[in-house]
Amino acid sequence: MDELKSFIERDAFAGLLGVEVLDHGDGHARARMEIKAHHLNSAGGLHGGAIFSLADVAFSVAANSRGTLALAINANVAYFKAVNSGALIAEAREVVVNRKLATYLIDVRDEAGGLIAQVQGTVYRKTTGTA
Amino acid sequence: MDELKSFIERDAFAGLLGVEVLDHGDGHARARMEIKAHHLNSAGGLHGGAIFSLADVAFSVAANSRGTLALAINANVAYFKAVNSGALIAEAREVVVNRKLATYLIDVRDEAGGLIAQVQGTVYRKTTGTA
Amino acid sequence: MDELKSFIERDAFAGLLGVEVLDHGDGHARARMEIKAHHLNSAGGLHGGAIFSLADVAFSVAANSRGTLALAINANVAYFKAVNSGALIAEAREVVVNRKLATYLIDVRDEAGGLIAQVQGTVYRKTTGTA
Amino acid sequence: MDELKSFIERDAFAGLLGVEVLDHGDGHARARMEIKAHHLNSAGGLHGGAIFSLADVAFSVAANSRGTLALAINANVAYFKAVNSGALIAEAREVVVNRKLATYLIDVRDEAGGLIAQVQGTVYRKTTGTA
Repeated sequence: MDELKSFIERDAFAGLLGVEVLDHGDGHARARMEIKAHHLNSAGGLHGGAIFSLADVAFSVAANSRGTLALAINANVAYFKAVNSGALIAEAREVVVNRKLATYLIDVRDEAGGLIAQVQGTVYRKTTGTA
Repeated sequence: MDELKSFIERDAFAGLLGVEVLDHGDGHARARMEIKAHHLNSAGGLHGGAIFSLADVAFSVAANSRGTLALAINANVAYFKAVNSGALIAEAREVVVNRKLATYLIDVRDEAGGLIAQVQGTVYRKTTGTA
Repeated sequence: MDELKSFIERDAFAGLLGVEVLDHGDGHARARMEIKAHHLNSAGGLHGGAIFSLADVAFSVAANSRGTLALAINANVAYFKAVNSGALIAEAREVVVNRKLATYLIDVRDEAGGLIAQVQGTVYRKTTGTA
Repeated sequence: MDELKSFIERDAFAGLLGVEVLDHGDGHARARMEIKAHHLNSAGGLHGGAIFSLADVAFSVAANSRGTLALAINANVAYFKAVNSGALIAEAREVVVNRKLATYLIDVRDEAGGLIAQVQGTVYRKTTGTA
C-alpha cells in the first residue's frame, strides 16, 4: 500500500494537470481534476486529451493496485458531453484480470454525476513478481 | 486558413503540454512534443495521457481543417513502445469523411521514425455550415 | 414492442448464426448462441467474429428498443478467454443516450457466468421520428 | 506456408459465412465475401457482425502468417457506409509487431474501392516457438 502511495506521488504528468487520486483499493481507483483555463481546447471546452488523461490516471492506479507493473496497451474512449467548468471525477474498476492481461472500465463524471466519457482499457503485465 | 491558424493558437491545453502544430492541410496535420520531466508517469516513461494528447491535437487540427466544427466522439489508442526522452511527432490523416461523421488515423513516432502509438478516431459535425 | 419483435425476426444473420434474442426492454437486451462446430476458428476455439456477432445482435436490439433506427458507427471488443463449447449469453445495456448518439456496453458470458468478451459500442440515429 | 494454408482451411466460421482468403504474405492477407441474403440485418443492410467477421478472417491470417499462434485481444471497428449487395474485400496489414503483441489495420472495401469499415486490432502470442 505504501508502495502504491509512492507510485501515485511519482506521477509527474498527473501533477502537471492537477489530477488528484482520491482513493484506491484492489482493482479500483478514483481521481479528480478541477477544470482550469489551461485544460481547454480551441472551442473553449475541456480538451479531449485532458479528459482522457484524467481517466488514464485512475486506470493506472487501479491496474497497479495489484502489485505488478502494468502497462496500458489499448484504450478506447467514448466522449458523451462537452464540459468547460467545475470538476470531474474518474472512477476505474476492473472488468477482468488474467495472468498477463487485464481490462478496466473508467467512467468520467461531472459533479452532478453526469457521464462525460467512458474509457475501456487493457494492460499487459511483463513480470509475474509481486511488488 | 487564417481561421484554422487562430483555432490552433486558442488550444490552451496544447500550450500546457508544449505541443506545437508543425503543418496542416486538408484533412491532414502534424504536431510535435518534446518530452520533458513533467510528461512522465510513475514508471518514468512518457505518460499514456501525454501520448494520447499529442495525437489528439493533430487529430483535432486535421478534423477542423475542413472548416466545420468537429467534435471527437470516439478514439481508440494502441500503445506499442515505452519512451522517455527526445521528441515525438503525431501525424493525422483522413480515412473517411461523411456528411456528419469522419474518421482519422494518427501515427505517433519518435525521432528515428519508430511507431510509438496509433490512434483511430471519429468526429461528429453538428452543423454543415462553413467556417 | 410488436415493431421491435418484427425487427428482431428480420435479422437474417442472427438466424444464420443461431443467435436467439432472450429478452429486451428499454435500452436493454440479451441474446444467446449455442456454440456449434461451424462457429469455430482455425485454432478450434470460438471465432472472434462469432463472439462479436452475438454481442452485436444484443447491441442492435437494445439500441433499437428506443423506436428510432440506430446504426452502429463504432464498436471496440476486448476478448478475455477462449471458449469452444456450451452456450454464450450477451447482455447489452445503455451507458448514455444523447439525441443523435448513444453508447452501449455488451458483456458476453459463458454458462457459468465467466466473462468471455466485452464490447463498447456507439450508434448514430439519422432521424428523430418515433417508430 | 503449407501450414498457413491448412490453418486457413480449418476456419469453419469463414466457411459458414462464405469468406474466401484471396492471398497472404508476411503480415498481410486479403479476404473476400459475397453478400448474400443470410448476411443481412433487420434493416436490410449487411450485418455489422458479418463485416467485422470478414475483417477478422483477414486479420487472423495476417497475424498468423508469422508462424506463431496469435490470439486477438482487442479490435476496434469503425463503420463508414451501409451496403447490401455485391462483394467486399478485407485487406489486413501489419502496423507494429513486438515480441508478444502485434497490431494490424484491416480495411474493408466494396468492389468500387469505397471504404466500408476499418478495424484496428491487436493480437497476443503465447509462445515464441515457430510453426
